[in-house]
Amino acid sequence: MTVTNRQILLKSRPVGEPTEDNFKLVETPLPEPGPGQFRVRVIYMSLDPYMRGRMGAEKSYAASAELGQPMVGGGVGVVEVSNNEQFKPGDYVVCYSGWQSYCLSDGTGVMKLDPANAPISTGLGVLGMPGLTAYYGLLEIGKPQPGETVVVAAASGAVGSVVGQIARIKGCRAVGIAGSKEKCDFVTGELGFDACVNYKDPDFREKLAAACPNGIDVYFENVGGKVLEAVIPLFNDDARMPLCGLISQYNMTELPQGVNKLPALLRAILTHRLLIQGFIISYHFKHQPAFLKDAGGWIREGKLKYREDIVKGIENAPEAFIGLLQGRNFGKLLVQVSDDPTR
Amino acid sequence: MTVTNRQILLKSRPVGEPTEDNFKLVETPLPEPGPGQFRVRVIYMSLDPYMRGRMGAEKSYAASAELGQPMVGGGVGVVEVSNNEQFKPGDYVVCYSGWQSYCLSDGTGVMKLDPANAPISTGLGVLGMPGLTAYYGLLEIGKPQPGETVVVAAASGAVGSVVGQIARIKGCRAVGIAGSKEKCDFVTGELGFDACVNYKDPDFREKLAAACPNGIDVYFENVGGKVLEAVIPLFNDDARMPLCGLISQYNMTELPQGVNKLPALLRAILTHRLLIQGFIISYHFKHQPAFLKDAGGWIREGKLKYREDIVKGIENAPEAFIGLLQGRNFGKLLVQVSDDPTR
Repeated sequence: MTVTNRQILLKSRPVGEPTEDNFKLVETPLPEPGPGQFRVRVIYMSLDPYMRGRMGAEKSYAASAELGQPMVGGGVGVVEVSNNEQFKPGDYVVCYSGWQSYCLSDGTGVMKLDPANAPISTGLGVLGMPGLTAYYGLLEIGKPQPGETVVVAAASGAVGSVVGQIARIKGCRAVGIAGSKEKCDFVTGELGFDACVNYKDPDFREKLAAACPNGIDVYFENVGGKVLEAVIPLFNDDARMPLCGLISQYNMTELPQGVNKLPALLRAILTHRLLIQGFIISYHFKHQPAFLKDAGGWIREGKLKYREDIVKGIENAPEAFIGLLQGRNFGKLLVQVSDDPTR
Repeated sequence: MTVTNRQILLKSRPVGEPTEDNFKLVETPLPEPGPGQFRVRVIYMSLDPYMRGRMGAEKSYAASAELGQPMVGGGVGVVEVSNNEQFKPGDYVVCYSGWQSYCLSDGTGVMKLDPANAPISTGLGVLGMPGLTAYYGLLEIGKPQPGETVVVAAASGAVGSVVGQIARIKGCRAVGIAGSKEKCDFVTGELGFDACVNYKDPDFREKLAAACPNGIDVYFENVGGKVLEAVIPLFNDDARMPLCGLISQYNMTELPQGVNKLPALLRAILTHRLLIQGFIISYHFKHQPAFLKDAGGWIREGKLKYREDIVKGIENAPEAFIGLLQGRNFGKLLVQVSDDPTR
């Protein structure tokens, strides 16, 4: 059988929730590296909520994916053929591969991985962009102080799980929010958060308030919607809210009717001198060396744990991505595209 | 006629808009200073939007006014009788007098004024708490850079007028928002803003967008409501929003029905890496010496102008305050309680 490049193209732009019809699997010839380039066989592809923004035509914080082109995103793989002195065949790398089984690169933005340090898949999760997002947002914007209460939503996910564990390392009370009893049990039992509340519980607001008896000093926002609405009344004076994502809003086609909750947030900002700072991690890669040093140490000391949700087969990426936006994954969502020789 | 102390008491807490029934004018004996105290004859009383928060029982950023006690607030006056070495009869002072024609003080939080420097009434406006609010919020949170666009609402008011003029001094494009053509003409003609838009115009959103051809880098928020909603789509990347007040919300008894605008603000925070910081100026009085030095210089150089709206007679304070919350004043609103010997 001839080896081909299997690619998932963006076939059409979704209105509201993406469907499998928005994607198309194609097979194309194996790409050949030009001068200075090398070819990577992708092993793991990352699926992340931000990719929903790239599927739309409207201006988001990064350019849209092009119709008829592979979906964008990060991957981990192994160099197969190289015309670049910096990258040799057999090197493991994190690169911006897109949704495909092979990619070309000239090395720009590519980071090498040492499989002896940590499983290579962690380069897309706890030691990758989601981990750095948690680290930067919590420490540089949230500035948690010992004894304070840090709340994070999507607490079993790639970013939230790291936020809460770093909060614990810094001496804070860590309170997670997740979407099932199983996830909440994992967040408290395995990750060591002080509490975790299921946002699907009918008395979610009361349970969140009970889990935060001293109010909320840092709310790491990656969800929006009803979670934020439950958080607003609990803010303490001088609270901080780093904001890196809004998964609950990504599939919205219009603003929701009902009660306008903007005045409630504004009132909290005024009366509690709240700080809100939106951030996009690609502007803060200079923090990566410090992050890798700290996070690597915490993993070795058993203080920073992670869970991966690995879907096998690139053909299953669209369904897995649709599920991610609904919270169906449990842990950092990856698609295994080809064999991992390091496992 | 025996001299008495005329006081305006908080008779009842308002539901929604305050009415004159919420206040009560009483005459009480002239207060006599005890050891270390002095008596001030109040000349000007300040009326400020934040006082609406003090009329309610709910927790705001400062304690509520007590029922049956004088309304709280700042005043400028002259020391009449003193048992305090630091304050002599004839000294002009700014103090937290409350709504009354005489007050006692032990000097805590009292600042002396030199009538030769500036009219004493400015100690409640352009050189007082509103001026410092504008100075601190714009420079320390807004951090305006030359060439950027700074937008401020209530632009003819005590805070907004200073925000826009400092923005001009710092080399920015200053765009005001006000509630009448007369106010807008004053803001551009007298205060020198680059543009001013009337929020009551039916095509307010379009006019604001046209006045900000390069988007908005700093929005100094003191209003909330429809003004903020018009600003949200115009934010540039890395925009800043200092928030010191929400005059449009103070009389709200419940959150407005309709479209929930919170998601739109959150999306702007995410995609433009927006910074929002609530602040209350009483926590930042250490900036007062630098402010007085800078603002005094700007006034002498003719770069910082101000307008006062002086209502005569303490009995007219409730009506004037109710009008303030509706935008009926034009300039810094003061009540003249007794003769000003310096004019």
